[in-house]
Formats: sequence, structure tokens, C-alpha cells
Amino acid sequence: MNNVLLGSIEAGGTKFVCAVGDSSFNVQEQVVFPTGEPEETLAQVIEFFSAHPVAAIGIGSFGPVEVDPASADYGKILATPKLAWRGVNILASLKKHLAIPLFLTTDVNSSAYGEYVKGASVNDHSCVYFTVGTGIGGGAIQNGQFIGGYTHAEMGHTFIKRHPLDQDFEGVCPYHGADCLEGVASGPSLLARTGQKGEQLPENHEIWTILAYYIAQMVLNARLNFAPERVILGGGVMQQEHLMEKIRATFEELNNGYVEVPDVREYIVNPAISGNGSATVGNFALALRELEK
Amino acid sequence: MNNVLLGSIEAGGTKFVCAVGDSSFNVQEQVVFPTGEPEETLAQVIEFFSAHPVAAIGIGSFGPVEVDPASADYGKILATPKLAWRGVNILASLKKHLAIPLFLTTDVNSSAYGEYVKGASVNDHSCVYFTVGTGIGGGAIQNGQFIGGYTHAEMGHTFIKRHPLDQDFEGVCPYHGADCLEGVASGPSLLARTGQKGEQLPENHEIWTILAYYIAQMVLNARLNFAPERVILGGGVMQQEHLMEKIRATFEELNNGYVEVPDVREYIVNPAISGNGSATVGNFALALRELEK
Repeated sequence: MNNVLLGSIEAGGTKFVCAVGDSSFNVQEQVVFPTGEPEETLAQVIEFFSAHPVAAIGIGSFGPVEVDPASADYGKILATPKLAWRGVNILASLKKHLAIPLFLTTDVNSSAYGEYVKGASVNDHSCVYFTVGTGIGGGAIQNGQFIGGYTHAEMGHTFIKRHPLDQDFEGVCPYHGADCLEGVASGPSLLARTGQKGEQLPENHEIWTILAYYIAQMVLNARLNFAPERVILGGGVMQQEHLMEKIRATFEELNNGYVEVPDVREYIVNPAISGNGSATVGNFALALRELEK
Repeated sequence: MNNVLLGSIEAGGTKFVCAVGDSSFNVQEQVVFPTGEPEETLAQVIEFFSAHPVAAIGIGSFGPVEVDPASADYGKILATPKLAWRGVNILASLKKHLAIPLFLTTDVNSSAYGEYVKGASVNDHSCVYFTVGTGIGGGAIQNGQFIGGYTHAEMGHTFIKRHPLDQDFEGVCPYHGADCLEGVASGPSLLARTGQKGEQLPENHEIWTILAYYIAQMVLNARLNFAPERVILGGGVMQQEHLMEKIRATFEELNNGYVEVPDVREYIVNPAISGNGSATVGNFALALRELEK
């Protein structure tokens, strides 16, 4: 399999990224286009892979999406607010034109897998990857398998404790207001409270204390639920570098010595794959895994 | 393996239960004794199984305990408040006298496994089992494997949202006060607030609304983290039958239509194995699994 070419599709809510990589998961070709109408968007995907043939493709999709390969609806977008995409089966549509092995999971599972095979968790047997950005999502891996039962996880909507200084904020989650992580710790929640974007706010702004409190709870709950060997934090909000230290310190305060964890500087980390490339690497690796089945 | 005899050890913080069962996981002999000093207690275990020889034993232990079979400390009790037991390797002690396959996991993982192989989740590929009693613990199974990375889960200490009517309660968790599930939803938290035990309190007492709110969050977060096919609620607090309906209703309110779940009456259930026997069945099944390796 050394000379094989692999494909990656990041099917995001705002953009699609298609890429071709080698068996070491290095990108050789890449194209980015906005997520438009389903038919037109998927035609662009097929066009790219017709021009750049690959042996197999890994797909990380926005959700909710059916991720069970045993289901008749495997690859179908479920109850998304993006109405045009609701009910669209990405995988089935691509299969009509691409007679190669395809594997589909959630976008954040792809990112987790990328970090697991070639990133921050390359020497681990387990990890949890979170993206904290426009939304919040998490993907957990144990011994190479994604954690998820009858469907995929939705970790960004777990309930957490409110910060004392944040009691009056109404939150931005259309389903859970200020009760869930996405409601109070996503990028839009920051904008809603301050009227500014993260990069415009000083490091000593109170909002960072509040966000660190929520993200630290997210990490602590992941530790308590999955006991992963590493927790990786990606996404736009995490691009404020000072935030990581606040999260680590708050994690230790909240845990209060209860569960043993490795050095937090090793335990809670940024993605090791640069340029927001975790999902692409993950998709290449998932394509290779599918090919080798 | 039809005529094989299997052993179960429930190594609890207050009592030990040893049992012998057949290959259908029916109990044939059982003994219960209080958890005393380690040496004396483990001698009673060895005495029982010397008198009742079995082919393999499954052990569900109180924790924290090393559960990784690859670790040199596999079977060792870690930083428990029961100081006499700290550092005691239950598995190694038993191995010196019992030259048969032994498998050890947490007590709540054993209960989860019992329900998975012969209880409420017998037709599922995944489940989460919670005990809500003196403490709160959870065990998750996916495709027959326990979810846990470098160690086991500690789901009872995850952080959740405080109920508006419960803001002033200080909680009973020595590590997390009223911030974690065990601090506000365990049996002792009920006693601390009301001065009474659950069975003495009327169904319309406000405490049930509060407990249902926390337990429903626990179930919702499990759904969002693991997407299990079923969530099973056992333990002393759950013996108040009216509580289950309150939990199901609150779960639906909190989810607010966000994630799809099956009918909550099928999704959130009591253990199907009667007489608090889930862990014993689980231990028999784990013993058989170890034997067949």
C-alpha cells in the first residue's frame, strides 16, 4: 500500500475541503469550496476526484449524520438546521460515481483520528478531541474505535455548571440556551456577551475566565467519562493561546486532586497537526483503514 | 463449557459477596460478609472458593482500582479513603491461592456487563449502567468492551448544572462539594438535605424534583457522550419507583428535542436482573469470557 493515493472530504456546514494524500498522509492536492446546494456541491466533489483518482476516501461530515455502516441510511444527513441538506445521503450520492471504498464519520471524529494516528495522540491508545469554535463537538477514540453506540456523540451539548459571574447570560444554544457547553463556551457565545471577537479582547478580560471554567469542565467530564490518555483542544476559540493555560489551571482546581491525571501540560494539549489539518489526516487514515479491510 | 462452574466476587466497600454460578449465570451458592481488614477479608474469599471450586472468577471491585490487565498493578486498590485497603492488590493476593483465570473490573462495570449479557440490554450493542446510592458510579459498554482509557471512568463525579431550588446546598462530595453528581444526587445528599431517608419522604416532596433534575442530566450527558442503546439506573435511590417517571420526563424537557432518542420508557430503565444481582451475573460472564480467551 506504499504508493496508494488516498482521498479526504471534509464536508462542513460552511465549506467543503477535498484533498488527495499519500500513504504517509501528506497532502498532495487540495481544493476548498463553499457548501452550496447539495447536488451542486457533491458534483464538485465528484469532479475533483474524477480528476484526481484515489484508492479510497475518508469523509468527515457535519451532522447529525447516520454513521453506522450497518444502517440502510449510512451517510445520510439527519435533522440539521441546513434544510436543503436534510435527508441527503452524502455517501450514497458519492457511491454512484466513485466505485471505491468510502468511510464516513463525523468531522470531529475525523479530527480525533488524525491526531490519534499522526498527531498529539500518536503514542496513545485513547484520546478525546474537542473543537471549540462556531459550535462545540467532541470525538472519542479507544483502541482505534470511535466511541458511539446507536449513533455518534454530541458532546458539545452536555450540561455543565454555570460560572457565578455568568448567571444572567441567556446562552446561544437554540435547544439548551445557557445550559450546555455550546450555549456558553462557543465562539458565538463570546461574541454575544462582548460584541467582539476573541482576538480583539485583552487577555485579562473576564470572559476568558468564564470560558476557561466551561472548557475545563468539558475536559474534566471527558476525563471522568472516558479516562482518555490525552485531551486535544482545537477550533477557533482555542487559537487564543493564553486560554490553554487558564483551562489547565482551572481543570486542576475543579478536579481538586480527585482523579489522578498526568501532568496537565502533557494531558490537555493543542492539535499537533498544523494548519487545521487534523481532519484531513484522519480522513486519509480512515480511507486506508477501509481499503485494508 | 456447558458444565463449567463460575465464580463471582463483589468486592464492595462495606461488604463482599462471593458466589458460584453455572454457565447460564444462575447462582448456586452465595456468601456475604462485611469488608474488614484486607488480609482477613481476602482469606474468607479464598476459603469460600477452596470449598467451592470454580473454573474462573470475575471480580467487581470498589475503587479507584487499576483495571488495565497490561499494568503491573492490575488489581491494585488506589487512593481510596479506606486506608487499610490502599495499595492492596486484590487480584495478586487471590492469584497466590487460586490458580485459575481471574478478571477484575469496577463494581459498576460488572453490573453493566450483567445487564448487557442477561438483563435490560441483552439485545443491545451498547449500554450505560449507573448506580445511584451511597455513591454514584457509571459503567459504559460498547460492543462488549468497557469504555475507559488509561483507567476506569468516574462518571459519578462529573459536573452538572445546579437546580434553581438547590443553590444553597453545600453538597456531600468531599472533593467537589455540590458541583458533581455524587455531591447532590447520592443517597447521603438526600439525607443531608432532609434528615430522612428516601423511603420516608412523600412522593410530592421537592427533593424528588431536584434529584430527578440531576439524574436526568446524568442520563442526558451519557446519551450525548456515548449514544448508548440503553441507560440502566440501579442503586438504592432508584428503589423509589416514582422517581423513574420524574427522571424520564425531566430528561425529555432538558433534551428539548435536540437528540433523537427511542421512547424514554424503553430507553431509561431499571435493571432487569432482580435482587441487586446484576454484578454477580456480570462477574460470571466475565469469568466465562476470561476462560474462553
